[in-house]
Amino acid sequence: MLDLPEIHRDSRISDLRQVMSIQSIDNFLSIDPVTLRWLSGFTGSTGKLLLTAAETHLLTDGRYADQATQEICGTGIELFVGNGTQQKEFTAALLQSSKTVTLEADRITWGAVEELKEEVEVDVLPSHGLISGLRRVKDPAEVARIEAAASIADDALAQVLSGLGEQPTELEFARTLDATMLDLGAEALSFETICASGPNAAAPHARPSNRVVATGDLVVLDFGAVIDGYHSDMTRTYVVGDTDQSSWDMVNSVTEAQARGCEMIRPGVKASEIDEECRFHLRDKGFAEYFVHGTGHGIGLEIHEAPWINEKSSEVLEEAQVVTVEPGVYLPGVGGVRVEDTVVITSSGFRRLTSAPKDSIV
Amino acid sequence: MLDLPEIHRDSRISDLRQVMSIQSIDNFLSIDPVTLRWLSGFTGSTGKLLLTAAETHLLTDGRYADQATQEICGTGIELFVGNGTQQKEFTAALLQSSKTVTLEADRITWGAVEELKEEVEVDVLPSHGLISGLRRVKDPAEVARIEAAASIADDALAQVLSGLGEQPTELEFARTLDATMLDLGAEALSFETICASGPNAAAPHARPSNRVVATGDLVVLDFGAVIDGYHSDMTRTYVVGDTDQSSWDMVNSVTEAQARGCEMIRPGVKASEIDEECRFHLRDKGFAEYFVHGTGHGIGLEIHEAPWINEKSSEVLEEAQVVTVEPGVYLPGVGGVRVEDTVVITSSGFRRLTSAPKDSIV
Repeated sequence: MLDLPEIHRDSRISDLRQVMSIQSIDNFLSIDPVTLRWLSGFTGSTGKLLLTAAETHLLTDGRYADQATQEICGTGIELFVGNGTQQKEFTAALLQSSKTVTLEADRITWGAVEELKEEVEVDVLPSHGLISGLRRVKDPAEVARIEAAASIADDALAQVLSGLGEQPTELEFARTLDATMLDLGAEALSFETICASGPNAAAPHARPSNRVVATGDLVVLDFGAVIDGYHSDMTRTYVVGDTDQSSWDMVNSVTEAQARGCEMIRPGVKASEIDEECRFHLRDKGFAEYFVHGTGHGIGLEIHEAPWINEKSSEVLEEAQVVTVEPGVYLPGVGGVRVEDTVVITSSGFRRLTSAPKDSIV
Repeated sequence: MLDLPEIHRDSRISDLRQVMSIQSIDNFLSIDPVTLRWLSGFTGSTGKLLLTAAETHLLTDGRYADQATQEICGTGIELFVGNGTQQKEFTAALLQSSKTVTLEADRITWGAVEELKEEVEVDVLPSHGLISGLRRVKDPAEVARIEAAASIADDALAQVLSGLGEQPTELEFARTLDATMLDLGAEALSFETICASGPNAAAPHARPSNRVVATGDLVVLDFGAVIDGYHSDMTRTYVVGDTDQSSWDMVNSVTEAQARGCEMIRPGVKASEIDEECRFHLRDKGFAEYFVHGTGHGIGLEIHEAPWINEKSSEVLEEAQVVTVEPGVYLPGVGGVRVEDTVVITSSGFRRLTSAPKDSIV
């Protein structure tokens, strides 16, 4: 087992209380599993977290009673176990003497909000990015988990990469890579591994198929591991044997763009400038219209989270954020290239957490 | 490859138009991936489907342009590809001469609704269960997919079951079962396979651990395969070697309760009666307070969907619905038992789609 530093959640609850105080939030209610996990440690699929002026309560049902008791032990959060009706009554009672309760507008359905409005007598207010804002900067225990996940992905790739030259199908290669990550201790895969060869790589989100990987192909591998809820994300594009000059141009242009984007990363830089740097390089190489997505995203308990690195992002990067840098070029009917690292922002620059070599030939 | 009957989506769009007409819905807008897949065939993660009085449009971004073109081919749905701003302008223009647009309140966030309200000049109205209502009754092509997924799960279990007696860890056994389902053609797993042994089985949603499965254990296996987006779901509880009388009582009581629940299934029966039948039997055996969840759920493009089989359900079962029946008993600190089949409701009763034997000893 990995020896990971303990996660301390006390400061998270107090950071949230500070934001609540600044924003005059009386009560905060979340039903989002990611918010619940980050604040309380509870990993069940269904629960509610309610912060009133003085108290913090986790509400869940009988299926999760034991698990919740263990997971929130030591946080000071009080556990309420009951069915849906009992949870509603408990919530209404806790909010009885309040005026408002604030929800995460982007992490609760419209239907759930309307239902809550029927159940409580206080005003129900929206918030945007309250918790995801707090989650953008990672503490060392979180970085350690992402780094452990990234190492597993690196090691798994090193073990299986030569097999890409032995004419596997995309599916066979993806499954071998997945099994190796799990063998090395990943608790799950970050997402469905992408192994997209030849023309299939023209779709940024291609799913692995029964196509046989052949000599001359470009192959995009995009994959990651999960450790204690934290994700890694890495993309490499390999040339099987050799390929034509136009394919090499794509590979080299994207690899350069990705390196240039990374080199700009440091606290205080605008996320949009990282995007612009990658986009500028690819435009310069004649690929402007074929880079059809943003340059990167934050990563942590979610595979995609704040901060977002794209043209429209208004974010300014901060130390201890963990982000991906992943420009790509996609030629419909022809193929595609993407290169991606997960990096942590340091006081003066960045440190790569994914470190598989970028030598392109298998 | 499996020879699966083609899915016909024309009737789905026309069924929805009929509901829209009955409920006086001018325009319908969905951003839910399951709704989009069911209505249009589009399997991307991000898109919008907009039905106006006369037209049906799928909106997505450049990443999914080619995929969407292929997937909605032949449906008569028109494709619009553009970035977020372009999609908003296109939506606003299409709704310009309308009064209202109806959304799926339970499949869109509060934040997304508030944003849409800023963008369009029509009234934004909620609907509840509109598409999940239509999806409750399966057509033969859907049943064929669930049945194919269930067969893979059955076959995989048959291949690996004897290994449960060879002292694997829960994780090792779960991973072998998963790999076998994928080898047999599953495109994915229905959910993270549960292999919960001894006291770990007291948690209905236990995650596989490094605990070694030992003689005398009860082991709960809950798993399923996905074929063309459709899920299967099956639980078996095995006794490794032999066990004590109280454990046998649990196993036999749950197995009987599950059989009694199944035997009641036919069109016209209330879902709550199926639940009551299982609950009555377990109460009779002294396990009333240890059956801490509902009896079952519909299954299809989602692992859990309507109709719901529990105490509070007001649903009446219909022919061609596909549901699970899965009572369980969970004794904190001791262990648990659950037995589950996926069944399709026939004109006069039910047919099991999962058919692994329920002989309990390994």
